Amino acid sequence: MNLQEIGQKSKAAASYLGQLGVSRKNEALYAAAQAILDGEPEILTANQDDVIRAAASGMSPAMLDRLELTPARVQAMAEGLIQVAALEDPIGEVISMKQRPNGLMIGQKRVPLGVIGIIYEARPNVTADAFGLCFKAGNAVILKGGSDALESNKAIVGCIRRGLSRCKIEEDSLQLITDTSREAVRQLMRLNQYVDVLIPRGGAGLIRTVVENSTVPVIETGTGNCHIYVDETADFNMALDIIDNAKTQRIGVCNACESLVVHKKIARQFLPLLKKRLVEKQVEIRADREACELLPGFVLATEEDWGQEYLDYVVSLKLVDSLDEAIAHINQYNTGHSEAIITSDYHAAQKFLNEIDAAAVYVNASTRFTDGAEFGFGAEIGISTQKLHARGPMGLKALTATKYIIYGNGQVRA
Amino acid sequence: MNLQEIGQKSKAAASYLGQLGVSRKNEALYAAAQAILDGEPEILTANQDDVIRAAASGMSPAMLDRLELTPARVQAMAEGLIQVAALEDPIGEVISMKQRPNGLMIGQKRVPLGVIGIIYEARPNVTADAFGLCFKAGNAVILKGGSDALESNKAIVGCIRRGLSRCKIEEDSLQLITDTSREAVRQLMRLNQYVDVLIPRGGAGLIRTVVENSTVPVIETGTGNCHIYVDETADFNMALDIIDNAKTQRIGVCNACESLVVHKKIARQFLPLLKKRLVEKQVEIRADREACELLPGFVLATEEDWGQEYLDYVVSLKLVDSLDEAIAHINQYNTGHSEAIITSDYHAAQKFLNEIDAAAVYVNASTRFTDGAEFGFGAEIGISTQKLHARGPMGLKALTATKYIIYGNGQVRA
Repeated sequence: MNLQEIGQKSKAAASYLGQLGVSRKNEALYAAAQAILDGEPEILTANQDDVIRAAASGMSPAMLDRLELTPARVQAMAEGLIQVAALEDPIGEVISMKQRPNGLMIGQKRVPLGVIGIIYEARPNVTADAFGLCFKAGNAVILKGGSDALESNKAIVGCIRRGLSRCKIEEDSLQLITDTSREAVRQLMRLNQYVDVLIPRGGAGLIRTVVENSTVPVIETGTGNCHIYVDETADFNMALDIIDNAKTQRIGVCNACESLVVHKKIARQFLPLLKKRLVEKQVEIRADREACELLPGFVLATEEDWGQEYLDYVVSLKLVDSLDEAIAHINQYNTGHSEAIITSDYHAAQKFLNEIDAAAVYVNASTRFTDGAEFGFGAEIGISTQKLHARGPMGLKALTATKYIIYGNGQVRA
Repeated sequence: MNLQEIGQKSKAAASYLGQLGVSRKNEALYAAAQAILDGEPEILTANQDDVIRAAASGMSPAMLDRLELTPARVQAMAEGLIQVAALEDPIGEVISMKQRPNGLMIGQKRVPLGVIGIIYEARPNVTADAFGLCFKAGNAVILKGGSDALESNKAIVGCIRRGLSRCKIEEDSLQLITDTSREAVRQLMRLNQYVDVLIPRGGAGLIRTVVENSTVPVIETGTGNCHIYVDETADFNMALDIIDNAKTQRIGVCNACESLVVHKKIARQFLPLLKKRLVEKQVEIRADREACELLPGFVLATEEDWGQEYLDYVVSLKLVDSLDEAIAHINQYNTGHSEAIITSDYHAAQKFLNEIDAAAVYVNASTRFTDGAEFGFGAEIGISTQKLHARGPMGLKALTATKYIIYGNGQVRA
């Protein structure tokens, strides 16, 4: 099927979904969950094909782990859809309505975005997760997964569409692009006529490719070079607990800490404690020259380290003379994700909150909280690191648009 | 100066502006207004150069009128800046703050977008208008005006920067790209590292070019193929007044009515009245075959007419059998701008409001109200016809982003 045809079908499905009530949508999510559970053997068999092919072609163990499905992971996909069914429907809410002097009542109503395209890599569970959230917000979905996961994705999408069909919901609410050529992705990124937004989910390379080549509006997600700045007034134990948590609780995620910034006034006392805590956890510290001279055992950082998202047991460390220098350093090298200050100084906290340019700015807490569930959104489609439309964790509301509705009684413009 | 350099300077100016208080911003707007008034002779002289050059190269009288500045137009630019100074500052507002079960206080704060690029055509007054709104919302601005207006734009930007400088505000808050090559625009559209959003202002061709070529996020504005549907229960006099107003009150604007849809049940009585009213105003009616057979004097419409934004004394006319057919027709051909129904039927009104996919959907009012001032925003930067970020008239709030601010006391993620 060509991309034009997929686009047309999605647009038709979107206008159908826009009028679908919440109980029908939830019914469909339950049916899709059941169809995934029923289809478990089929999904696992398809996934084994993908895994065998990927292993033969030399995929790394970490990537293979992302690709591989187990009965528990299939069940988690189904449960994810049921959890989304339980979330409040954002559609139809009138956010505000005001009467103008001429009597016009002007309101702003929440509506679906329309057609959402998701471009992702080797994790087949994204297939069900992304569908669930987009669908609940009344959107039609076009998925383009990694070619390594093609058989898995086909099986999962097949099950979901079967579930939709069972409860008489338009199957084309979910479509999968099975053409694995680069040309297919290129076309999707230029399908402005039919696709309202593209959300890339995956590594930095994928996201950059989509941002640099798409003329369809993109919501940029993901990359996180998250900093923790330890101010001169920081509570050392709090700082150590937060750094330990943000760096090591889960290594490969975008809200993990990758860079430390420490005030020079406390370096002599704090660095030995920091080193002890992180070395226990096998974390390599790449520090600037001054820190290396203060304490042995650090690796000397290069300029490249300041901008690095390691996603590994590595962290960079920079000493600064002042809060201003810390803020300037973070604003230069961060990726607009999550940044934290550890401080007991009221003014330092306020200044950091005001001046750091990022989706989420923390005082005395771990950057690992930047997450839809932790923010109380129930679930998330990703974490936006751009400023337009949505910034930070994106729940159901980020998958909606608004339209103005205007009640008149004959008004004309003078 | 190359585009990279302009981008860097704008980004630096943006981080400066993000911390600027409202009274300093207003001071700067007043100073810029005064500098424009002081610079009137210089601006008019530069503009005369542009006008003479454009006339010599055969520019149409309508376009020349848009290009030409008069003392009154220069004063209006200055007044526009003063009006923007009077608007409430959107920056710094905390839209919501909630406490999570773990004690984290998570709030969402309104911040500037950062760097806004505006690409526009021959109207030099856009130079001051666009600067004023973007600046008030704390953004740095990069302008790329039409080459026909280059001397005028240089003079206006020179005055504004002089005003900023007089009150010690960073001059690079406003930069003008004076390189008139296509390559300069192409580079601006790919300046993702420095530019947060591009807003094209001008005709359909310009907007399409920017949407199709920019990798910087774009807010699509402008094109309006606005419909008015006259339902079988419409009050005829109300319908005629609204159609007359929406079609003829101002011909060349995006919220003017371009397409009429009329229920067949009332066609025999309504069309003669409609024809009489519009013919009085010199409006040509391009109607479908059935309407042409009912009444002489219409021009037979072609398929192309349904999608046309005439911006002229022309309107298309389509007869339909039902409200459903009217909605389907409008959703097929509209440009996502403004659509209206004239009806006395409650259910028809609600159905139209729900099912029409556009930025502004009206019951019993003229589409001409889709405008920032009419909506109560004080001023507007344009009318967004896309769904992402902002939809409909864009006031100051549409020129802002948000960031999450999180107050903790040592929380780590379990």
